[in-house]
Amino acid sequence: MEVMRVLHMNKGNGETSYAKNSTVQSNIISLGRRVMDEALKKLMMSNSDILSIGIADLGCSSGPNSLLSISNIIDTIQNVCLDLDRPIPELRVSLNDLPNNDFNYIFASLPEFYDRIKNNKEGLGFSLGGGESCFVSAVPGSFYGRLFPRRSLHFVHSSSSLHWLSQVPCGEVKKEDGAITVDLDNREKIYISKTSPKSAHKAYALQFQTDFSVFLRSRSEELVPGGRMVLSFLGRSSQDPTTEESCYQWELLAQALMSMANEGIIEGEKIDAFNAPYYAASSEELKMVIEKEGSFLIDRLDISAVDWEGGSISEESYDLVRSKPEALASGRRVANTIRAVVEPMLEPTFGENVMDELFERYAKIVGEHFCVSLPRYALVNVSLVRTS
Amino acid sequence: MEVMRVLHMNKGNGETSYAKNSTVQSNIISLGRRVMDEALKKLMMSNSDILSIGIADLGCSSGPNSLLSISNIIDTIQNVCLDLDRPIPELRVSLNDLPNNDFNYIFASLPEFYDRIKNNKEGLGFSLGGGESCFVSAVPGSFYGRLFPRRSLHFVHSSSSLHWLSQVPCGEVKKEDGAITVDLDNREKIYISKTSPKSAHKAYALQFQTDFSVFLRSRSEELVPGGRMVLSFLGRSSQDPTTEESCYQWELLAQALMSMANEGIIEGEKIDAFNAPYYAASSEELKMVIEKEGSFLIDRLDISAVDWEGGSISEESYDLVRSKPEALASGRRVANTIRAVVEPMLEPTFGENVMDELFERYAKIVGEHFCVSLPRYALVNVSLVRTS
Repeated sequence: MEVMRVLHMNKGNGETSYAKNSTVQSNIISLGRRVMDEALKKLMMSNSDILSIGIADLGCSSGPNSLLSISNIIDTIQNVCLDLDRPIPELRVSLNDLPNNDFNYIFASLPEFYDRIKNNKEGLGFSLGGGESCFVSAVPGSFYGRLFPRRSLHFVHSSSSLHWLSQVPCGEVKKEDGAITVDLDNREKIYISKTSPKSAHKAYALQFQTDFSVFLRSRSEELVPGGRMVLSFLGRSSQDPTTEESCYQWELLAQALMSMANEGIIEGEKIDAFNAPYYAASSEELKMVIEKEGSFLIDRLDISAVDWEGGSISEESYDLVRSKPEALASGRRVANTIRAVVEPMLEPTFGENVMDELFERYAKIVGEHFCVSLPRYALVNVSLVRTS
Repeated sequence: MEVMRVLHMNKGNGETSYAKNSTVQSNIISLGRRVMDEALKKLMMSNSDILSIGIADLGCSSGPNSLLSISNIIDTIQNVCLDLDRPIPELRVSLNDLPNNDFNYIFASLPEFYDRIKNNKEGLGFSLGGGESCFVSAVPGSFYGRLFPRRSLHFVHSSSSLHWLSQVPCGEVKKEDGAITVDLDNREKIYISKTSPKSAHKAYALQFQTDFSVFLRSRSEELVPGGRMVLSFLGRSSQDPTTEESCYQWELLAQALMSMANEGIIEGEKIDAFNAPYYAASSEELKMVIEKEGSFLIDRLDISAVDWEGGSISEESYDLVRSKPEALASGRRVANTIRAVVEPMLEPTFGENVMDELFERYAKIVGEHFCVSLPRYALVNVSLVRTS
């Protein structure tokens, strides 16, 4: 699987598009707001004479969320400057995602975005100097590698992106004839599962460590000393990578695929061979890679639970006696959210023509799960400072 | 007409797309290469210790030409550095066009573009430092206004773009009842023509002067002192804006439209009201605006003839005895080239359903013109230096 080519949200504005099915990711941005604001305040306080500030949002995607993080960042900087009675610096804003992302969709809403910033600033009583103090650009490319000029950034943000790996992990399996093949031997599953061999767990963990280390190294060259990063992505609070919070969305998707294989609609071997380029890291793994790479200090690292619809309701207060139709509606929404993200990577293997059926089954399976429990992700929020 | 919305080349990769019909613009880039190379050499010679160079291509469009200018610029910088035995600086490359441009199309070819640069550098015997010394970003927005941070650029290039105005010029016409309406009173024409009223000539010239002055002012803030611009666009060598080189492509398009109006296929009033947001400036006008704005010195200003197919064959050596089918084929190619550029701005007024018929007629009219003469544009190439 060529991750660069297939890792993009469903394009456009249709029923199955990411633009129409990204409320969960929007909620996750809101949940991370407090940590982001805190980091921005610290950044501005320690750079009192800054005239131009470089900001990047990595994995901006395409839809209503694409400009949401950037809007939040700009609002916070404007408010901090107002509080400190300082002029707003020139804002150099970069939106990054893979080259296959639908950037045209974002650009269409840029004129409106500029108008909003302008009105905001006027509302705050700032003079504008022509309204030309915010410059937005798009930088297509993988964040697992260099994207920006040396020391050009002060603040890096990324939400709901760093759980994606640069490639499907490679496992080496020795065949009877001595040949070595690249196969995780992850039968009937598409991500780490209780039945996966230990070698698959290891391959996934290694791929994450390599990728995240390259990510940190690349950003360390792009950020100025004292620059900050706030990263928010799906991880896990347990050491065990096979707990529900870590992998259950994939477990249920594998169930849907297997039910279709059992009916001969798709080939079982394809499920055995498919593995998602995804990893839910633990805080221990994160700390280990950050310390080993050495360019960043951890200012804070939180892991919180967020339900599959992006809410922060606790499992205890989840009303299990609610009606079955309500649970099934939740299942449908979750399936739509996940379809908008993973369909482009499933299609090349399983075929475009089975996608409706697959996500129909998935919606039902997820809905039934909602009848007995409130499924939740573990959301990692990490705030880092570039050492000098 | 909202120029921001309708001024974009025909999208995608189909028969009438700009991507498939942009050989003329590619030839124009080649014709401007010598002047561009000269400017880049002078820039590099006068900045011997430069570590990072900011480059922008304004009006990059979408298709095979989008990365052509940038490729040429990078090749030249690499060669100059090789000649001078200097390391290649970090290259910060920005591609600009209006937000409606098909940027997705460009981004799809970026990975290949990076590979080519990398191979080139290795071929030149340079070490790469990971191949990460060229950073491409896209900056959507109008170049008639600020696009880039203050003093962030060293070299600005623009080809086949600056003949487009920011808006259709406004003429004020007093009606019998005293009301003032905005109308150029340019009957049966869509650009300056021999039959246009003098007020229309004046309105067009004023719009160009305003736009070009705003362009220079914006770039003067973005370029470092000593930074350079090479601009290449359609203009005129005569003072008279109604000569063939200046307006004949529009004259013949108006003929095609009028023939359809006479047959009741489109409404004649719509032709009266439509005016192209285009202007072919003379060298005197250019010099006047550049001197008045005051931020740039002219290093050179050339005007050369280029035929409507982008060739530089002289009128004298044009073989008028060539066959009629050959001339008609030329007419067809020219009509396709112009359709790829102007269709999005004609459609809202005249309707999508008449476009095939319109350009069928236009191809024939242009082809007949090729039977009696070699139609040519006047191509302006101006090289400017930002004063310190």
